[in-house]
Amino acid sequence: MRIGIDVESGERPFQEFVKGALKSIQYFSNIHIYIIGNTNNIKKKFKSINNIPNITLIDAKEVITMNEKPIAALKKKKLSTVSIGIKMLKNKEIDVFFSAGNTGATVVSSVLSLGMIDGIKRPAMATFFPRIGGGETLIIDIGANPDANEKDLYNNAVLGKAYYYLIWNKINPTVGLLNMGAESGKGTLEINKVYKTIENIPGFIGNVEGYNVFNGSVDVVVCNGFIGNSILKIAEATRKYFIYTLKKSLSKDFKISKFEKFILGIFNLSKLYKQKKNIITGMLLPKYYGAAPLLGVNGLVMIGHGSCTSRELINAIELTYKLYSLNFLKKIVDYTKKMLKKY
Amino acid sequence: MRIGIDVESGERPFQEFVKGALKSIQYFSNIHIYIIGNTNNIKKKFKSINNIPNITLIDAKEVITMNEKPIAALKKKKLSTVSIGIKMLKNKEIDVFFSAGNTGATVVSSVLSLGMIDGIKRPAMATFFPRIGGGETLIIDIGANPDANEKDLYNNAVLGKAYYYLIWNKINPTVGLLNMGAESGKGTLEINKVYKTIENIPGFIGNVEGYNVFNGSVDVVVCNGFIGNSILKIAEATRKYFIYTLKKSLSKDFKISKFEKFILGIFNLSKLYKQKKNIITGMLLPKYYGAAPLLGVNGLVMIGHGSCTSRELINAIELTYKLYSLNFLKKIVDYTKKMLKKY
Repeated sequence: MRIGIDVESGERPFQEFVKGALKSIQYFSNIHIYIIGNTNNIKKKFKSINNIPNITLIDAKEVITMNEKPIAALKKKKLSTVSIGIKMLKNKEIDVFFSAGNTGATVVSSVLSLGMIDGIKRPAMATFFPRIGGGETLIIDIGANPDANEKDLYNNAVLGKAYYYLIWNKINPTVGLLNMGAESGKGTLEINKVYKTIENIPGFIGNVEGYNVFNGSVDVVVCNGFIGNSILKIAEATRKYFIYTLKKSLSKDFKISKFEKFILGIFNLSKLYKQKKNIITGMLLPKYYGAAPLLGVNGLVMIGHGSCTSRELINAIELTYKLYSLNFLKKIVDYTKKMLKKY
Repeated sequence: MRIGIDVESGERPFQEFVKGALKSIQYFSNIHIYIIGNTNNIKKKFKSINNIPNITLIDAKEVITMNEKPIAALKKKKLSTVSIGIKMLKNKEIDVFFSAGNTGATVVSSVLSLGMIDGIKRPAMATFFPRIGGGETLIIDIGANPDANEKDLYNNAVLGKAYYYLIWNKINPTVGLLNMGAESGKGTLEINKVYKTIENIPGFIGNVEGYNVFNGSVDVVVCNGFIGNSILKIAEATRKYFIYTLKKSLSKDFKISKFEKFILGIFNLSKLYKQKKNIITGMLLPKYYGAAPLLGVNGLVMIGHGSCTSRELINAIELTYKLYSLNFLKKIVDYTKKMLKKY
């Protein structure tokens, strides 16, 4: 797998991404990383980087920042990391492009350069939430298309089913529409239009709410990019709050009797607490991949979390590798075509 | 405080609410509860209820169910628990009305019968989220007005400030607009209109995201009722998922050495775990009151969670008692009037 990584556009400095890239080639055989950024700066910080096989530096003179308006920025900065990466993908010089930068810029550049797959008008991003009792629930869209109309959400349902099928190998995943209540007719005027548009999709189970995301009663949860982005961020923030609370409650201030303290001291049971603490924290972190594929465009584009760390980049590359090995693009195109032909 | 409680409209049977009411009069002195529901059924299940001072039964022949369209249902069912309760509130026969039923019906009935306070066009519901490091953040609206336009969100900001001031006694609480990124210009076309409308409100700090809700960087988070409802439900579901995960990780299956098991057995340290577990679970439950006041209407109306239990009803009554004691309506009206006069 040849992957192009934009090391300049995330919230963290390029070193973070380069470190992640260097670690990744140790973890995964069979990958070649194209580091897209300011070659001079990179060489200054990583002196022998040119001697590493499986790493190629691609010089990009410009960077699109988080604040820039996507279309204007892409017009102005033809030599940006995003423009160069997407162009390489289009020219089949790489198999995948990854950026943790300005999501809008990556989305617009992908749509304009790579084009959409047959039958899909607007792209979407999707991520998995963990479930009580195992398995995962897909949320689509989490931010590619905040102004989605009912047809876009129909397409999201189809793309979501395709992606769920790819990962879980379930031919007809169930689909739910995120709403304010289970009953049809709930919510905004807009959401009721969406309901009527998507209710005939195979596997549609009606409106769903927050608890459905975690209890396994639905596979694919459809919403617009604004809502999806909001619930993803609240879930992540809730998780952080929870881990903070947990750490605090497991801290030394916690009241135990002198006798218990004595026992804990002698037998070093505090080690046990520490061990438990790590296990708990690990379980709480949903299987978060550090990146989500941009679904619907004609290529494998991975969009990373703005604050993506080198550790998360490795996770993102792991997911990307999995998608690439599963023949991501062909499977999505085939499934989508079949679904859209039927309805 | 005279409080009318709709015992018929929630997702649970009337017994749950009556039990909560009966417990509440033991906890709180100085309250009189008007139980609004099917008097015959209530008397059958609670034989001596008529002999209890501080409890009065109010007969309501009809119930508006969760599925009904609010306006049509209110027209058809003039003798519903909600219609009767709101009418009693209007006639000052009670000081507060509580319902955990069809939110839309309670909202519409309140607006039509009680009217709005000066300067406010549409009502909103608000709830507090806990913060790392203490304190709470207010989210407004959590479901009263899903189709809110920019003027409604301006009003929500004002109502949110008023409510925050009432509870935390902070004269100028900060206000943030929930959006997909901190930078201005992010998000939908609609949200950008909202930004321009509310940016001159005193204490406005710009766009906020999920993590701001928990880190204390903003006091009042403004969003429409659809988004607020979605994030509230996801946060609650995430919490449940965590508690499940925690319980699982603290279960007996957790691997510890035989020696450690031996020690745990002898000194009964498992008691310690249990103790810790309860404390952790307690801390994780945000200070959830079981109900939220309907802000902006000319009366104290409390809207309960659909699945409200007797325990949550007691919490709701505790919050209601606090609001009533703080002179809720007058404070909200005064603060709102002052704020709206300035801008």
